[in-house]
Amino acid sequence: MNSFGSRFRFTTFGESHGPAIGCVVDGVPPRLALTEAEIQADLDRRRPGQSKFTTQRQEPDQVKILSGVFEGMTTGHPILLLIENVDQRSKDYSEIAQKFRPGHADLTYWLKYGIRDYRGGGRSSARETASRVAAGAIARKVLGAGVAIRGALVQMGPHAIDRARWDWTEVARNPFFCPDPVAAAAWEGYLSAVRKAGSSCGAVIELVAEGVPAGLGEPVYGKLDAEIAAALMGINAVKGVEIGAGFAAAALAGEDNADEMFPGNDGLVHFGSNHAGGILGGISTGQPIVARFAVKPTSSILSPRRTLDTQGQPTEIATRGRHDPCVGIRAVPVGEAMLAIVLADQLLRARGQTPDGIGPPALPRAGSPGA
Amino acid sequence: MNSFGSRFRFTTFGESHGPAIGCVVDGVPPRLALTEAEIQADLDRRRPGQSKFTTQRQEPDQVKILSGVFEGMTTGHPILLLIENVDQRSKDYSEIAQKFRPGHADLTYWLKYGIRDYRGGGRSSARETASRVAAGAIARKVLGAGVAIRGALVQMGPHAIDRARWDWTEVARNPFFCPDPVAAAAWEGYLSAVRKAGSSCGAVIELVAEGVPAGLGEPVYGKLDAEIAAALMGINAVKGVEIGAGFAAAALAGEDNADEMFPGNDGLVHFGSNHAGGILGGISTGQPIVARFAVKPTSSILSPRRTLDTQGQPTEIATRGRHDPCVGIRAVPVGEAMLAIVLADQLLRARGQTPDGIGPPALPRAGSPGA
Amino acid sequence: MNSFGSRFRFTTFGESHGPAIGCVVDGVPPRLALTEAEIQADLDRRRPGQSKFTTQRQEPDQVKILSGVFEGMTTGHPILLLIENVDQRSKDYSEIAQKFRPGHADLTYWLKYGIRDYRGGGRSSARETASRVAAGAIARKVLGAGVAIRGALVQMGPHAIDRARWDWTEVARNPFFCPDPVAAAAWEGYLSAVRKAGSSCGAVIELVAEGVPAGLGEPVYGKLDAEIAAALMGINAVKGVEIGAGFAAAALAGEDNADEMFPGNDGLVHFGSNHAGGILGGISTGQPIVARFAVKPTSSILSPRRTLDTQGQPTEIATRGRHDPCVGIRAVPVGEAMLAIVLADQLLRARGQTPDGIGPPALPRAGSPGA
Amino acid sequence: MNSFGSRFRFTTFGESHGPAIGCVVDGVPPRLALTEAEIQADLDRRRPGQSKFTTQRQEPDQVKILSGVFEGMTTGHPILLLIENVDQRSKDYSEIAQKFRPGHADLTYWLKYGIRDYRGGGRSSARETASRVAAGAIARKVLGAGVAIRGALVQMGPHAIDRARWDWTEVARNPFFCPDPVAAAAWEGYLSAVRKAGSSCGAVIELVAEGVPAGLGEPVYGKLDAEIAAALMGINAVKGVEIGAGFAAAALAGEDNADEMFPGNDGLVHFGSNHAGGILGGISTGQPIVARFAVKPTSSILSPRRTLDTQGQPTEIATRGRHDPCVGIRAVPVGEAMLAIVLADQLLRARGQTPDGIGPPALPRAGSPGA
Repeated sequence: MNSFGSRFRFTTFGESHGPAIGCVVDGVPPRLALTEAEIQADLDRRRPGQSKFTTQRQEPDQVKILSGVFEGMTTGHPILLLIENVDQRSKDYSEIAQKFRPGHADLTYWLKYGIRDYRGGGRSSARETASRVAAGAIARKVLGAGVAIRGALVQMGPHAIDRARWDWTEVARNPFFCPDPVAAAAWEGYLSAVRKAGSSCGAVIELVAEGVPAGLGEPVYGKLDAEIAAALMGINAVKGVEIGAGFAAAALAGEDNADEMFPGNDGLVHFGSNHAGGILGGISTGQPIVARFAVKPTSSILSPRRTLDTQGQPTEIATRGRHDPCVGIRAVPVGEAMLAIVLADQLLRARGQTPDGIGPPALPRAGSPGA
Repeated sequence: MNSFGSRFRFTTFGESHGPAIGCVVDGVPPRLALTEAEIQADLDRRRPGQSKFTTQRQEPDQVKILSGVFEGMTTGHPILLLIENVDQRSKDYSEIAQKFRPGHADLTYWLKYGIRDYRGGGRSSARETASRVAAGAIARKVLGAGVAIRGALVQMGPHAIDRARWDWTEVARNPFFCPDPVAAAAWEGYLSAVRKAGSSCGAVIELVAEGVPAGLGEPVYGKLDAEIAAALMGINAVKGVEIGAGFAAAALAGEDNADEMFPGNDGLVHFGSNHAGGILGGISTGQPIVARFAVKPTSSILSPRRTLDTQGQPTEIATRGRHDPCVGIRAVPVGEAMLAIVLADQLLRARGQTPDGIGPPALPRAGSPGA
Repeated sequence: MNSFGSRFRFTTFGESHGPAIGCVVDGVPPRLALTEAEIQADLDRRRPGQSKFTTQRQEPDQVKILSGVFEGMTTGHPILLLIENVDQRSKDYSEIAQKFRPGHADLTYWLKYGIRDYRGGGRSSARETASRVAAGAIARKVLGAGVAIRGALVQMGPHAIDRARWDWTEVARNPFFCPDPVAAAAWEGYLSAVRKAGSSCGAVIELVAEGVPAGLGEPVYGKLDAEIAAALMGINAVKGVEIGAGFAAAALAGEDNADEMFPGNDGLVHFGSNHAGGILGGISTGQPIVARFAVKPTSSILSPRRTLDTQGQPTEIATRGRHDPCVGIRAVPVGEAMLAIVLADQLLRARGQTPDGIGPPALPRAGSPGA
Repeated sequence: MNSFGSRFRFTTFGESHGPAIGCVVDGVPPRLALTEAEIQADLDRRRPGQSKFTTQRQEPDQVKILSGVFEGMTTGHPILLLIENVDQRSKDYSEIAQKFRPGHADLTYWLKYGIRDYRGGGRSSARETASRVAAGAIARKVLGAGVAIRGALVQMGPHAIDRARWDWTEVARNPFFCPDPVAAAAWEGYLSAVRKAGSSCGAVIELVAEGVPAGLGEPVYGKLDAEIAAALMGINAVKGVEIGAGFAAAALAGEDNADEMFPGNDGLVHFGSNHAGGILGGISTGQPIVARFAVKPTSSILSPRRTLDTQGQPTEIATRGRHDPCVGIRAVPVGEAMLAIVLADQLLRARGQTPDGIGPPALPRAGSPGA
């Protein structure tokens, strides 16, 4: 329903134009230092209205901690994060109240629930993802400083980056979370044109988690990759997820796909490649975890599209108002957050069943268990 | 862990070379006619040793129902399905016992658990998927005859089918579940060469579920697409999942991606296209549900690959023995089963919260709730 | 952790002296009329400070709905209920901050979490139960007007009511939820004496749910009685739970305990008695569900008791401040709420698996399924 | 449904007169030595037919491990335990097939599922509890040798033991698991008379778990006492559960109920009494955990009782055949098993969130966290 995770679990609530959104984060280990400012930093990366390439809705997305933290430390009890909605523009909703927007959840919410909060998409609005980012900030705390989770836009519309130019420091330097400065520059023009045309475009995001210990994942139905897939596919507008080599793996020969192993001088297992994306048999290997997800073009566009009204009559709709021409951009911090949450949850679970089985991928030695 | 699903839930057990594998299927509605023969029919589609293109291990995969069925009808209580292993060839396991095969779960199982049943991959063997197929046969019963779930191989190695030639009746006519007879013919030669070279190749499978009622899916963390993603990514060797237009959606313009709606004479909502793959906002629309998943090439290959032994020393391994040169082929019925299971589970859940919200996508009428 | 229920599920948050408490209620069917006033009515029954027999803390317990309700109707999405704390008296916490109160969770919270919000008991305070009552009000909506759930205090300290005088209308007429006016009058004097002595006493509460359809409960690990037991035992200070004849059943002969059945003219199964408390084999029979639970005496008392301080040194503590001399009184609406929640959850679950198996206990007829 | 537990989770299957019963035990930590013989030892304590005071059905209850154990050690993967039914006497079921036995689940199963396996009670038979005992044997392994869980019958029918004579060694010396040799002798005559009269009686069982570390339990909805309550109330025929002082606590004064604390020379917290039954605020204190549960008299009796037949007609039934005159006796090992399972599950969960918060109740020291 509206909870995600098993042992690190968060439950979100709230609609786009209701008084507030937020989440309860449960299962957080005690005695972690936590401030609103730390959560805010992540929220600010997702916040709308920061460039002309995202919706002009002005939401400060100011998070408040209402429970679960005492004298700056987590207590082990549920943490309520509340974000008030302040820019619910008093607009005329009559059009979207009476028509089902193609590509949106308008129709399915109506069919399933027989009622829908049409204001700004209500519960189905991507505004809900702010709660995910807030919960993700706590998940990062659980994982600790040794785990770094970063995301980048690697394709906008049909335009992919050149991976040879990948530079993580570039990601913060452009409004697209793009690691390739040349692509970022080109996207400015492309996206401006899309926006001016009242059109929209999709995107592909890549996530990389470094420092993840080996041993996370619970085969065969709590596999790490399966849970990452659910976490990312569940983000608004996502239509595809892949791990490591992903769909391209289908076209590889077995010889080329194998990630060879060899012993390192550091006492750890090393790999010749990472087609697996850091996961074998549903369990982390200690290599970086690499996942990608595809976001469809924003469904709110100016070109009129055929649809139905709430009387079942044929009509057309052109969605005016504030939205992102490429929702994939702001999906970057959301994807990072969901990956952090999956990893934090798996960490707590692994600590329960296999406390000795989490850590760097140590080389087996004579006499070590199972060797 | 080893359970999947919330209200229709199955739990699998068993290792490749243990005495038996199987599963407990829980939550099945009562008074469904069910026989071993019906389950067997699905199992036989996945069974090994049926052509030279799959492993030569001879497993009859004969299923027995040990509980939950009385006088040919389900009772509403857990159904235990047991499949005995009969062809655990008394082979010499010394090589895989002492070396970690690249691409397999050998290393991660060892790191996590400190012990591994190395015989044929133990718990991580794809043999476990027989239990999924058996559970899937019951899921189909829950969905009823109105829902048809079919799968097909649409790409083998780098070779995709021509979708213009798609013919479902072809799927049963070749050993590849291929809907394109021309591609199927070409694949025979291709896969023979791969097999003889001791190499392997990957594949892409497409699943289509028709007749699925609108209203299945639980936003925002029990979305139908998110659960399909988890279900398919959790199958052995899967590296990517997509719904509808999938990754290609990223390159579409908003205008082109929109699935326009119009009223049908049958009183139902109709769509001009199905880029959404039958799911909007995480809820089924009543259109066919379309999902694809990518399977990596079989990790067991004859070409020697660098690896480690259980003393941490560098070595090489070439995997001899019985296996599929393209595990993607037998993944077709497994994918179908997992999709059926997700849909059955969502059906039971939807019936709980929104019993009036499941059915064909009826046109709104004046006075209908929410219209 | 901090969630209860499977399909009707609520998650609570908040500490006694934090800014707010509340809960997220998930799984609520759509299109139920719901107002804050309806929830408030239940909260007011539990509210402190209403007589000299409960804590003098003045909390209005004003509930706000922040999500999940649109134009007065539930939407099927999570409902956030927020109750601000307003009377967190700026008291001197130094004593309870530095000593572990016997009978309270002070020690165990400290041992488990290594940190505790000592202000008013923090998370372990019975203040949390306001959230349960609020969620219970929604559960009652889900059950509908045909199901009536009522509770009464049947024993205060060692003084039990005379069941022959049971009158439900009396329950609202005294500050004890006592159905026996004679006992209520006697308790006034008794509890005044307990209170003046700085002592405390326990209580036994009886809950009765009428109009519950047959068919609720999921054997063998989701039995209705097992979930009621968990729901009631989990209320603060509860030490015992029984169903129907309860512990007294142990002393009955089989002949006397049997609830004989006979056909009614109304087409329903009737029973000669209700030792079973409305539940057989973990499933509701359609008879009234009867449960009782025992509440220990309030642990906060004026008599000094030996304990430890946070340096591990022996000391004494006498708990001054505001609290209930008999916490069992205010546990009555809390118990009702928990019972309502269990029933609502089971209703949604039964509707999923056995939609035809819920209703009044209809007599079997020739040709009816299973007959 | 048919699973119990969160991280140590078992799922049972099977009917009284089907081919087999058993369970899948999931979440078991790897590298625990485990043999069938160890499980068998616990099963033998519950096995029927061992004295004239239990059913004469002769079931060897021979358990087989079909998965999850490799070379004598758990692998961390699901363990399938199978117990074949061998003494399904080919009796005439026509009477119980056509009549609903009072006190049994016959009616509710029929109402809910519309079908019932009437042979020996089918799924609702207490035969299912053999699976619990088998799973409990593994739970004990997870808890380790430092935790001792024992049970005893403390009341048979109306006849309670004299607690002053409690001697654990007596429990194995009589067919009643009675710790009081004088009571045991008296019960022989009493139960013989009950049995000969074709009647039945109830019982109260007390469980004590020693060596349980402090820190187990997850407030506020995964409290240790709440889960014990569910575990015990879910056993067939149980009507009441209490922890520590239980219902008697209601009649105590606050002063008398308080378990005073003082520092021990062993560096641990000591208590002056254990009214709490080893649990405060839902978390174990390190004191012995004490729980009691009441079992109703066996519903199968020779005295005819009024009931209905499957045509809805009034009739009478007297249950002949093999059953226990006091099912409470064999509930002793079942109760022990359920308590072990709850503790094992909570241990794995606590290790996830609060790995530093599990252990003996160490005295706080200056500088220790939270002190």
